Amino acid sequence: MRIYVMTLFPDIFNAYIGESIMKRAIDKGILEVKLYNIRDFSDNKHKKVDDYPFGGGAGMVMTPQPIFSAYEHILKENSLDNPKVIYLSPKGRIFNQKMSKEFSIEGDIILLCGHYEGIDQRVIDEIITDEISIGDYVLTGGELPALVLIDSICRLIPGVLNRNESFEDETFENNLLEYPQYTRPREFKGIEVPKVLISGNHKKVDEWRLEKSKVLTRERRPDLWNKYIQKSDKK
Amino acid sequence: MRIYVMTLFPDIFNAYIGESIMKRAIDKGILEVKLYNIRDFSDNKHKKVDDYPFGGGAGMVMTPQPIFSAYEHILKENSLDNPKVIYLSPKGRIFNQKMSKEFSIEGDIILLCGHYEGIDQRVIDEIITDEISIGDYVLTGGELPALVLIDSICRLIPGVLNRNESFEDETFENNLLEYPQYTRPREFKGIEVPKVLISGNHKKVDEWRLEKSKVLTRERRPDLWNKYIQKSDKK
Repeated sequence: MRIYVMTLFPDIFNAYIGESIMKRAIDKGILEVKLYNIRDFSDNKHKKVDDYPFGGGAGMVMTPQPIFSAYEHILKENSLDNPKVIYLSPKGRIFNQKMSKEFSIEGDIILLCGHYEGIDQRVIDEIITDEISIGDYVLTGGELPALVLIDSICRLIPGVLNRNESFEDETFENNLLEYPQYTRPREFKGIEVPKVLISGNHKKVDEWRLEKSKVLTRERRPDLWNKYIQKSDKK
Repeated sequence: MRIYVMTLFPDIFNAYIGESIMKRAIDKGILEVKLYNIRDFSDNKHKKVDDYPFGGGAGMVMTPQPIFSAYEHILKENSLDNPKVIYLSPKGRIFNQKMSKEFSIEGDIILLCGHYEGIDQRVIDEIITDEISIGDYVLTGGELPALVLIDSICRLIPGVLNRNESFEDETFENNLLEYPQYTRPREFKGIEVPKVLISGNHKKVDEWRLEKSKVLTRERRPDLWNKYIQKSDKK
């Protein structure tokens, strides 16, 4: 899989990639991440990339020219034909595990990171195939959301996680939050792990875990709990 | 504001901080971010920080000792008394702009980044005050979620954003997505900006923007749209 990133801050990506699972995926030849600094494509003599919004209002808007030029360069340099072009934006559809799975089987994805008050709508209309938000909060730019997408997608590509890591991610599939986890030592600061977990009775362990998951989900995430109930009723 | 981060990958933070708005907040003396490598606090001679889960299952769980020791060290070194301790986890409440505002007025926050299959529940029970998720997707660790929190909180602290940047973030307050933005040039690749935006008629501009916001929200985010409708009905 190849991911092309259009950003004003490529160094943010270099640092995360070097420290994370992405490095392993890249070293294994499973993933390639290519960074393009939008500023390098500005025709403006001062390499300006933003301007005031038409119609007034605070904040600056990213101008269309540098982004378009970067996009055209990426298509040509990498001989891409109609790739997914994802714009990270608070206006987008909310990212979830299902989308991550869908993206993880794409061959090529272009990510566009905005900054300031957003980007000129003409860019969105002309080149963007998916506008995606990672959640209902405002961030200073699209770099962290892009890294969130890459990290999430990357670990789903076969061969990236070790066998021991590649457990089933059931949390967002069966609509239940994960049960509590315990590890050594058995007793820490006077607190023991629940006896059932060291009982060796797998059926009892599974029952305990399911019950804990249900309680947690009902308390914390009524939205997921309702989905779980609806699915259970259908069975 | 001071943010203390417990993580296995402090370098990820250093890189982002150096490139982002956080650097500006730190340079201005408004924000301090202190990083603590959990591994440094492991009593294990091999500096091990994880072990197999009791009760079986794939993946490794972070052991309680290194995290507890790091936590106690942070409290002592910084003379903290009952600070908020946030664990970034897919099991948490979903982060949103309202929480970000609440956190932005805290004096001290400790963030705990998990890895592998999560952390021993005894840590959560004993020291965690808030368990928070940035969205319904699985990531390889809590580092990106922690950066998302810091970035989002940081820009809300008075004095961090410039006057020109500190526009009102209405998207997640009035439950409408933001209207399309346009900037120079007026015509790009044959596409003109909507005439109303260059009309100089502020009332018409506002009406156009509100209508666009409504259409976008109705199409993309029925959940927000329903909230908007309910609030409008009450007025």
